[in-house]
Amino acid sequence: MFDKKYQSDVALTVNPLDKGIGALDAACAPEVIAARGWNLLREDLNLPAAVLSQSRLEHNLAWMQRFATEYGAKLAPHGKTTMAPRLFARQLEAGAWGMTLATAHQVRVAHAHGVRRILMANQLVGRRNMAMVAELLVDPSFEFFCLVDAVDQVQQLASFFGETGQTIQVLIELGVSGGRTGVRDDAQLQAVLDALAQSHGVVKLAGLEVYEGVLSDEGLIRAFLLRAVKTLQGLANTGRLQRSPAVLSGAGSAWYDVVAEEFSRADIGAPLDVVLRPGCYLTHDVGVYRAAQAQIQVRNPLAHKMRTSLLPALQVWAYVQSVPEPACAIVALGKRDVAFDAGLPLPALHFRPGRCKPSPVSAHWEVTGMMDQHAYLKITPGDDLRVGDMIAFDISHPCLTFDKWRQICVIDDAYNIVDVVQTYF
Amino acid sequence: MFDKKYQSDVALTVNPLDKGIGALDAACAPEVIAARGWNLLREDLNLPAAVLSQSRLEHNLAWMQRFATEYGAKLAPHGKTTMAPRLFARQLEAGAWGMTLATAHQVRVAHAHGVRRILMANQLVGRRNMAMVAELLVDPSFEFFCLVDAVDQVQQLASFFGETGQTIQVLIELGVSGGRTGVRDDAQLQAVLDALAQSHGVVKLAGLEVYEGVLSDEGLIRAFLLRAVKTLQGLANTGRLQRSPAVLSGAGSAWYDVVAEEFSRADIGAPLDVVLRPGCYLTHDVGVYRAAQAQIQVRNPLAHKMRTSLLPALQVWAYVQSVPEPACAIVALGKRDVAFDAGLPLPALHFRPGRCKPSPVSAHWEVTGMMDQHAYLKITPGDDLRVGDMIAFDISHPCLTFDKWRQICVIDDAYNIVDVVQTYF
Repeated sequence: MFDKKYQSDVALTVNPLDKGIGALDAACAPEVIAARGWNLLREDLNLPAAVLSQSRLEHNLAWMQRFATEYGAKLAPHGKTTMAPRLFARQLEAGAWGMTLATAHQVRVAHAHGVRRILMANQLVGRRNMAMVAELLVDPSFEFFCLVDAVDQVQQLASFFGETGQTIQVLIELGVSGGRTGVRDDAQLQAVLDALAQSHGVVKLAGLEVYEGVLSDEGLIRAFLLRAVKTLQGLANTGRLQRSPAVLSGAGSAWYDVVAEEFSRADIGAPLDVVLRPGCYLTHDVGVYRAAQAQIQVRNPLAHKMRTSLLPALQVWAYVQSVPEPACAIVALGKRDVAFDAGLPLPALHFRPGRCKPSPVSAHWEVTGMMDQHAYLKITPGDDLRVGDMIAFDISHPCLTFDKWRQICVIDDAYNIVDVVQTYF
Repeated sequence: MFDKKYQSDVALTVNPLDKGIGALDAACAPEVIAARGWNLLREDLNLPAAVLSQSRLEHNLAWMQRFATEYGAKLAPHGKTTMAPRLFARQLEAGAWGMTLATAHQVRVAHAHGVRRILMANQLVGRRNMAMVAELLVDPSFEFFCLVDAVDQVQQLASFFGETGQTIQVLIELGVSGGRTGVRDDAQLQAVLDALAQSHGVVKLAGLEVYEGVLSDEGLIRAFLLRAVKTLQGLANTGRLQRSPAVLSGAGSAWYDVVAEEFSRADIGAPLDVVLRPGCYLTHDVGVYRAAQAQIQVRNPLAHKMRTSLLPALQVWAYVQSVPEPACAIVALGKRDVAFDAGLPLPALHFRPGRCKPSPVSAHWEVTGMMDQHAYLKITPGDDLRVGDMIAFDISHPCLTFDKWRQICVIDDAYNIVDVVQTYF
């Protein structure tokens, strides 16, 4: 799965000029970082710094793989969340069937780091984007899927890959009215099928895909999933499917349990790979995904039986830069460092350099606003908080936190830096 | 100013795995990109891609330098906006006195690329952050300033740089009640002055700094600026200033004209460098900063006399990925690609590959929402828009657009790629 042959264009170095790392005289391989002996609490990193908990990552990796496996489903974690190939490798080693990515650029990055099966959960559009995929398809060990939902688009794929003399596997995307991409009705579906039939075998139909996350009602989601199963049955019955097993894929990070339930009992009268695509489970969060997971723990019997749940594994640490008024501290943490679109970061731990260990923050501390490089922290007059203190923030929305960092240190439970993962946004 | 001696740790390569560039077999120097012959309209770039207009950058560079010079002020453009050292170099070549940066990490990046005078418009806090600055201060050609606003913080600087046997230049930051950092009143000011006096010459007072952008009323801003001038006069009169000329600095991108007016007529009875720090002028935008600049064109006599104004120089291009409903197109452009915190991107140009040139978009096209990797574009049924069409989006808030890109292509007016600038976020 990790053929070195395809890794020649990958820069495997930690750049000393990146933020959130320790002192480096020169670029080095991430594998040697552990030997540097950096420790977060000894102030060896320049803050702000994002850190991943090694033990929590391992917990989440195992948790989701077990969940998918018990449903008989394949896992193709959405790599757009982290865009960190070292984490992709861990997801694949834990048993994932492949990776999901969102763009041709992301696909290229994953392939360059050894990923050999990719579901691009998007339409592939544009000359250079198609060319990048065509270059990867020269690799016979690489299996690739992208989505189609329109006649124009199928024709563009057929034209491009017809000229390169290659074939390309696609999944038809089903969508809902008012949703995002995807065919809305039977007429659109039939038009796409006709276009596929006219592609002279260049564009091969491998199955069906949905993204149920555009809906927010469980009943509507189940109905949408049943429509997907029924549609795929129709495609199987009419001999439209050109891969065996066929692929039936759905599931973002909020409804993967419902998708697993509905898809795992699908019978299309032919071999089937049910492929789940959650991405945020790996680091989880304390915001939108903790709320979604709480619902899953309640409604899903397997999650309930597993007793444990996903754990937040990503925090961002920053210094108190100023306490200019008794009820306000300014923290050196900004929109450049952490997601702010799905809830502001939540202060979690307080550490004063020189002490033994961090303590939980006062429950009333709250981020009330953020600028590019600053956060406003509301405190109470008299709180024991000083310039130079460190605060760990929990986050909401891992995707838009990962993309703020080029290197993210991985820590053990004693805050030693044991690894560094690089991102490719 | 660009001493190669200090550039040894800089990776001067365009990584083939970065998004928004053309086909590269291997990493290459940005200087050779122009020879590749890439053209945006020929679909040589993988989209989405951010592009900078060469001619507009040059216009804006010259415009702001002239503005500052005519006021007798120095320009220290805020580099946090772009974090692109090739743009820093152009700002310095155009006449800038130095660069402003926001964090120790950013300071290190700028110094590694040859910048030799830096105003860090923030408090310097934390052991590793101070150590990074200490490493740079070994370079005798490097002049550095950071801000102080609290006793604790001055003591921490004095302790750290006392141990390294170095001195550090600081500006006292004045702040306003309800604002961000900065001393609020005379008592806080006096406490900081006392702490400076007790630093045994380690922490040297070079002048005074304000960030007027925390206020939004011109009258309040002028009053705040006059308070700064008066405070600096007091420091000069009492022999507190340890640099000649002293430094008096203010000005974000929205009120630089008012700061230039008020500070350029300051007389503190001693030599004075008035330093302006706008950052967004270089690319400008069509959102928050266009609105601010329109006010400047009205209220400032010099801007009025110059007849031209700043021009938006940064756009993000993306493909139409799907038109699933008659009034809705899905564009392959997301929160990962463009700022969304100060207004959503505005569609500006429409181009169908194969045509001669782009045309302005229909006035009623509008981005109504964004996800991580998608934008919803509201159109009217019957509009001539297809899958595979390219759309150029104008942006609001350059800072949070730059930080989405590791490489940004620079284009001439015929959409040829003539350069690539790298960012270091």
